[in-house]
Amino acid sequence: MTTQLPLTPDYDAWPVEAELERVSFTPRLVTVRWSDGRESRYHSIWLRENAADETTVNPATRERILDLSSLPGWPEIEGAEIDAAGALWVTFAPEDRRLRFHPGWLRAHDYDNAGDPEAPLVPVTLWHGGPGECPDSLDASGLLDTEPAGEAEEAILAPALESVLGKGLVRLRGLPTEPGSLEAIARRIGPVRPTNFGLLFDVKAKPDPDSNAYTSIALPPHTDLPTREYHPGLQMLHCLENSVEGGQAVMLDGFAVAEALRQRDPDAFATLTRVRWCYANTARTTDYVWYSPMIRLDERGELLEVRIADFLRGPLQAPFEEVEPAYEALMTLQRMLCEPDFAIRFTYQPGDLVIFDNRRLLHARDAFEGTSGHRWLQGCYMERDEIRSRYRMVQRARRRRRLTTTV
Amino acid sequence: MTTQLPLTPDYDAWPVEAELERVSFTPRLVTVRWSDGRESRYHSIWLRENAADETTVNPATRERILDLSSLPGWPEIEGAEIDAAGALWVTFAPEDRRLRFHPGWLRAHDYDNAGDPEAPLVPVTLWHGGPGECPDSLDASGLLDTEPAGEAEEAILAPALESVLGKGLVRLRGLPTEPGSLEAIARRIGPVRPTNFGLLFDVKAKPDPDSNAYTSIALPPHTDLPTREYHPGLQMLHCLENSVEGGQAVMLDGFAVAEALRQRDPDAFATLTRVRWCYANTARTTDYVWYSPMIRLDERGELLEVRIADFLRGPLQAPFEEVEPAYEALMTLQRMLCEPDFAIRFTYQPGDLVIFDNRRLLHARDAFEGTSGHRWLQGCYMERDEIRSRYRMVQRARRRRRLTTTV
Repeated sequence: MTTQLPLTPDYDAWPVEAELERVSFTPRLVTVRWSDGRESRYHSIWLRENAADETTVNPATRERILDLSSLPGWPEIEGAEIDAAGALWVTFAPEDRRLRFHPGWLRAHDYDNAGDPEAPLVPVTLWHGGPGECPDSLDASGLLDTEPAGEAEEAILAPALESVLGKGLVRLRGLPTEPGSLEAIARRIGPVRPTNFGLLFDVKAKPDPDSNAYTSIALPPHTDLPTREYHPGLQMLHCLENSVEGGQAVMLDGFAVAEALRQRDPDAFATLTRVRWCYANTARTTDYVWYSPMIRLDERGELLEVRIADFLRGPLQAPFEEVEPAYEALMTLQRMLCEPDFAIRFTYQPGDLVIFDNRRLLHARDAFEGTSGHRWLQGCYMERDEIRSRYRMVQRARRRRRLTTTV
Repeated sequence: MTTQLPLTPDYDAWPVEAELERVSFTPRLVTVRWSDGRESRYHSIWLRENAADETTVNPATRERILDLSSLPGWPEIEGAEIDAAGALWVTFAPEDRRLRFHPGWLRAHDYDNAGDPEAPLVPVTLWHGGPGECPDSLDASGLLDTEPAGEAEEAILAPALESVLGKGLVRLRGLPTEPGSLEAIARRIGPVRPTNFGLLFDVKAKPDPDSNAYTSIALPPHTDLPTREYHPGLQMLHCLENSVEGGQAVMLDGFAVAEALRQRDPDAFATLTRVRWCYANTARTTDYVWYSPMIRLDERGELLEVRIADFLRGPLQAPFEEVEPAYEALMTLQRMLCEPDFAIRFTYQPGDLVIFDNRRLLHARDAFEGTSGHRWLQGCYMERDEIRSRYRMVQRARRRRRLTTTV
């Protein structure tokens, strides 16, 4: 009998926090008792398809190759025992196959005692701004000199990812100001999502602008690209130059504003979760249109996203009797967006990079005097999947280090 | 009084299908009667914010600059009349501003008589496959020689876009077989969405695969990247080489399968719209995880998307009592996915490009004999917004041509 723990079906590291002490079974269920007294039940079919052997998982890719519907019948259990290494052995009929499970992995996937498997990686905290408040700010000056995916990079990125996941926002400082360097910085997290505005877009006053963003006028609080089915999850704005009068950056937690609206004016809140506004970005060569409520909730009534951008709203096409209530709710929201207590205001310094959740935060800017100097931000979009993947890799590295320290 | 029709707030062309004949108003409502007898009502506030003048819209970008909440009060109507050119003039209090509206634009945005503003651009038709069926196939051999956004390009792209929008699938034939040419082809529609697998990905048997796609084994019917919050809306697969034994392509209309399941086994259907499966793509350097039902419905119970990929399912973390019903429903679905009557089967020829809706269609492939020749597809992803924007540009061009022919 082997004394090494078996492979898991994934690439992750699973420290053994508690040991398997006892096991019993019925044809469709294995019940185990752990060294800390916890009891966990696993269904036969769940165990069968989550085995890590080469009839279940392609060893080269760790992706499943087993097709459950091709088995001779529903997997049933004929035997279960714990071996000297602490792993669980289960024998399955009608295949008559004996398979081995890693106790750390089993414990980490104990759906019988699980909390919310979809709980956020970092707790979400809503925030209010107000005079003097500023975003979490981190020195990132060495970032591009670190080894990709190494510990030095992790030391800079991990707290930044935590701020973005928890508060929706972080400001990195001391980065290079070379045009285009944003791409290399962004790639430390994941691939950039290009749009019709390019891989990187230049936010500066342009002679022939195709967006109000590319002028010197003020922009009201907004999310970018609400005109898309799925507007980008993350936005990055990287300051290369800023010597103008005005042009202060403004950031609001759209979820905090929405929750305040839910408290103060539940009818207006309900209206904004129901009425489907038209968002349109009709330019000379492209024509993006999407219909969506301004505030979207998930099945449990929790905030899923906000979609707000006054300058990208097309003509409302709601049922006739919804039109006046819709505009009343919109104006209530717009007045709240002007309240100084929701906003963080700050001035970009060259080398600053702000990363924010574009489905939660609203950003705005004051008008600036175009002739008083230069203001040049480069921006890009990314999906939130990337920041979560990157943060899971941080967690995996931490688990792996814990594993090597405790063994 | 001018005899030219006014600007519209957008860049689109709006032929005048019927003329304004009569107008009346109350403070909050304008009522017009058209030459074909139709009557339409427009709210004062809706008209005010959809004006096309320079207090409402930035003339350079055609994006709104008016902030409704900054007006001195709710816009009310003090006068309304039709001018010699057939345009509507409305005078608004308390601003005391007189603004002019294009009758073609007003008619096109007649929310008082509108059908579904979110109706698909092309009617959606579900399809079954079966032996001998093949995808809509179009000769696209001249595509890269046409002028971008010109009429020759439109003649090739318009029917292709219609097939993708309506049936979720098209096959273009006769395209170049140079590696990388997919990027230039895709850009004729819109920007590509890169992922951790690159801007373009190479589907061929690789020595150190990070996905089952990059081996020669069979792949069951699946959507790509269900491991993401929003998996890509479109996928393109471009055949560069195919001289192997086997490796036939299989395509199914996932919506047709889902509707058949809804008819045959409503309980299994309901289970698959409710249980949130784990999709996981945990590799050595990335870790994507997302939880979602396999079949997602919109607010009206209509199909929104399918998310199916057996080899990318991670360990189910559902409530204990949901686990057995979930697997029963899954196996019912998997048996349906094997029915030959749902599937289109075809063999890729070099120069073929298949474009399909990755949130609706399922694709699969037979195993192939890796030593019998070469099989090389290049693929990429794109958002569905791009195909809709491109098709709206086709519609705009058609309206513009109708306008020039009729004037």
